[in-house]
Amino acid sequence: MKRFGQLIGVKKEYLDSYKKYHSEVWLEINKKISECNIQNYSIFYRDGLLFAYFEYVGDDFDADMKKMADDPKTQQWWAIMKPMQQPLENRAEGEWWSDMEEVYHLD
Amino acid sequence: MKRFGQLIGVKKEYLDSYKKYHSEVWLEINKKISECNIQNYSIFYRDGLLFAYFEYVGDDFDADMKKMADDPKTQQWWAIMKPMQQPLENRAEGEWWSDMEEVYHLD
Repeated sequence: MKRFGQLIGVKKEYLDSYKKYHSEVWLEINKKISECNIQNYSIFYRDGLLFAYFEYVGDDFDADMKKMADDPKTQQWWAIMKPMQQPLENRAEGEWWSDMEEVYHLD
Repeated sequence: MKRFGQLIGVKKEYLDSYKKYHSEVWLEINKKISECNIQNYSIFYRDGLLFAYFEYVGDDFDADMKKMADDPKTQQWWAIMKPMQQPLENRAEGEWWSDMEEVYHLD
């Protein structure tokens, strides 16, 4: 299992909308996330920032991420979410959410 | 079980030291955290920010936090960590780490 922490901004004018969408996530989105071997997935908000925590339990992360990105319903969801988000200026090439570095863990 | 997401800054000049301490956390600190009903605890770093994720599995959070704060070894640890950290200016009274708002969760 690999743990991920990721950071992205959310535009102030879309915060309420972003929260509302996430309080009623489409069933197909959650189903696809689970199918792609992601579990215990939370998103937290504060001060213009979204922090995502999730656990990847599969054995081919890139293939699972491609499976997710190829899913039409997920593409539809992202097309609504992306304009609300503000990716970090110093993000790596190809990143949307930016990976953080794990500096501590206790089971 | 209640999930927590918390945010705090880390001073640039102390980042390496903070990471080193957390790569070799004192056994007594981890033991006390577990005794206080906190589990699956991770800290992530990026861009001057520390993000903590943990799960509280007890039934009296305030009492457990007091137990932790009363522990002499924990006090010793915090006395080293706190000067490295930069709490958010808009933190609530009594906060050190600032609580974030959970906007999404999928098991």
